[in-house]
Amino acid sequence: MEHILIGRTYYYIIERKRGIPLCKTMTTNEKALMLHEQWNGKLETTAKAAVKSREDLALAYTPGVAEPCKVIAEDKEAAYKYTMKANTVAVVSDGSAVLGLGNIGPHAAMPVMEGKCVLFKEFGNVNAVPICLDTQDTEEIIKTVTYLAPNYGGINLEDISAPRCFEIEERLKATLDIPVFHDDQHGTAIVVLAGIINALKVTGKQKEACKVVINGAGSAGIAIAKLLVRYGFTKVVLCDSKGIVCKNSPNLNWMKKQMLEITNPDNEEGSLADALKGADIFVGVSAPNVVSAEMVQSMKENAIIFALSNPVPEIMPDVAKAAGAKVVGTGRSDFPNQINNVVAFPGIFKGALEGRAKQITEEMKLAAAEALAGLISDEELNEDYILPEAFNPKAAECVAEAVKANIKE
Amino acid sequence: MEHILIGRTYYYIIERKRGIPLCKTMTTNEKALMLHEQWNGKLETTAKAAVKSREDLALAYTPGVAEPCKVIAEDKEAAYKYTMKANTVAVVSDGSAVLGLGNIGPHAAMPVMEGKCVLFKEFGNVNAVPICLDTQDTEEIIKTVTYLAPNYGGINLEDISAPRCFEIEERLKATLDIPVFHDDQHGTAIVVLAGIINALKVTGKQKEACKVVINGAGSAGIAIAKLLVRYGFTKVVLCDSKGIVCKNSPNLNWMKKQMLEITNPDNEEGSLADALKGADIFVGVSAPNVVSAEMVQSMKENAIIFALSNPVPEIMPDVAKAAGAKVVGTGRSDFPNQINNVVAFPGIFKGALEGRAKQITEEMKLAAAEALAGLISDEELNEDYILPEAFNPKAAECVAEAVKANIKE
Repeated sequence: MEHILIGRTYYYIIERKRGIPLCKTMTTNEKALMLHEQWNGKLETTAKAAVKSREDLALAYTPGVAEPCKVIAEDKEAAYKYTMKANTVAVVSDGSAVLGLGNIGPHAAMPVMEGKCVLFKEFGNVNAVPICLDTQDTEEIIKTVTYLAPNYGGINLEDISAPRCFEIEERLKATLDIPVFHDDQHGTAIVVLAGIINALKVTGKQKEACKVVINGAGSAGIAIAKLLVRYGFTKVVLCDSKGIVCKNSPNLNWMKKQMLEITNPDNEEGSLADALKGADIFVGVSAPNVVSAEMVQSMKENAIIFALSNPVPEIMPDVAKAAGAKVVGTGRSDFPNQINNVVAFPGIFKGALEGRAKQITEEMKLAAAEALAGLISDEELNEDYILPEAFNPKAAECVAEAVKANIKE
Repeated sequence: MEHILIGRTYYYIIERKRGIPLCKTMTTNEKALMLHEQWNGKLETTAKAAVKSREDLALAYTPGVAEPCKVIAEDKEAAYKYTMKANTVAVVSDGSAVLGLGNIGPHAAMPVMEGKCVLFKEFGNVNAVPICLDTQDTEEIIKTVTYLAPNYGGINLEDISAPRCFEIEERLKATLDIPVFHDDQHGTAIVVLAGIINALKVTGKQKEACKVVINGAGSAGIAIAKLLVRYGFTKVVLCDSKGIVCKNSPNLNWMKKQMLEITNPDNEEGSLADALKGADIFVGVSAPNVVSAEMVQSMKENAIIFALSNPVPEIMPDVAKAAGAKVVGTGRSDFPNQINNVVAFPGIFKGALEGRAKQITEEMKLAAAEALAGLISDEELNEDYILPEAFNPKAAECVAEAVKANIKE
């Protein structure tokens, strides 16, 4: 796409008439494509150790480099002292569930993983490298990450399809001595919980009395349900594309079966619409436009709606509000109350690396959510401002502190 | 180690008397250890795409990032256009043969691989990431690198023990569509050949008439022998710790057997000393002090000696010279004629990536050696100056051009 910069605006050239370009303003998507070509990689590696002289070379490379090698050979923990392991995370994906694009494979997943690495550095000052794996075999992914682990202080799993993502994370957590964190699950869950904590304050609802309906039983939906239960919600109902997840649901995978132990205590059956009747909170991590105004009207007063399907939410905020919802959040930056993982994951790993945590525990996740919610003072808090924005400079810091405060020996 | 900086010199503190430190100048090794602790990683990842505003976020990450993803999903070659694959190399090791330290494993190998990555960036402007694998199983290493390949424009294998390194490289070259290059083999061979090309000029010797003895049948020795034969030497004799590699040698591995097809044409038997009688050129990639003055005296006039064992060479340069050698090179920077891979590998990958080569071919290696030799003009050339020094700014560029000129579709 031929393009041109006029003032501070990019245009693309539709055609040339007698050599004179006919221009049209670029959309965000067109501009994103052009910029990705200009960047040719959004990330680079940079030397912290200068190598400008023979002496530099002898210190950063042979023969001097043998000294830290020998110390680490005696005690591999010393790698945290002498190498980048201390402050480096791998962003690992198999490209099986990338954004809303689905199973696009490792090559096509790279722009997303590079972008994630950029966010780790820019928001958390954590080095991160993209690792897009050319296999979607669960066992092979687990083995590969195990072989790669010496290089990193933590593993951020990303865009791996459910239910494989659960097994991969659990198995790696059980064997590796570095934190493993599937951001699509836990990053999302932390930010959703933070938003709900503040939405409860705005609406005056009590968690013990609330019915929560989560639509979407993939990685995010499962993790949100787990964290909300852990936080103290007792009536959580999970729905998938077939309706309420219950004992009679068709095609229950092992994770959905496991979820029935902590969700749907009354074994409700039926559709999403059935589930929403009398509910206080809706969290959608599902598909565009699956919630109607009538469904919101059937909920309790002052309903809380997080419609996180992106870019088109489960219900548009104005429609939800008109139907009686009090607090509405989406994944979009052009509406109030954006639910954006970027306020969580950089701080999660920053804290874990600084505190040398071996795992990201449930306590850390709860504390991170409380900390994020706490960034909004009672004076600032209102139905359109329940969460710190993406660029809040305190977000990563407060999450990191919450993680560090919960590290147990 | 407690340390102190006085002026521009580092000292370490031996003891304190009434609080006053008693100091001693640091050795290179002590200083290297201290600096590695200060660096805490010699490499970092840096964002090329700034993320300072909501618009930046929408362009570098969601939703804009979906655009390059979609293009790459259609044609994975587009990854070279939109991602860092185009200019990024993985430095892969299993820690099985690190410097002179031996099999120290992946954690302890990290300072070396990080250092190598720094050199890639500083000398060749190529991004590089260290990948130290927690497995030494040949099949697992091959599989893991195959899974990782989408991320990189090339694979630099490093410090993997022989003969495993040969199989790993050959198998990966056969299946991957990006260049795979074991620097311990080919980087060393290229620089040795460059040095020999110029040493022949200095001594007036002809390659067709020369007998070459290579001591050391590991990765470097094997690759040097192959490249010298490919260049046109017809009498190359390979020795290992048991003496001349010949049909009756004990414990021949498959690679040494294969080498007998192109080396030792007269099936000589005996010791290294036997091999050196009447030889013109000695290349040692073996062990300290295994060559005596008498052995050099037994060689032809104006002998060429590359004693590359490091830091203690096979024979010290002054001893070799006194025994009649005309040109002496070592791996050390404190003697003339340092044989240092750093003049080759950054340019090899720079050229391969810029030209999008699928393989590093024999033609490229020969051309790279000729180009490095050609950097020394006839006026400059003398017995103590046969190779460009490590910091010669033209080295990477001329090697890269030689590689690019030899890319075939």
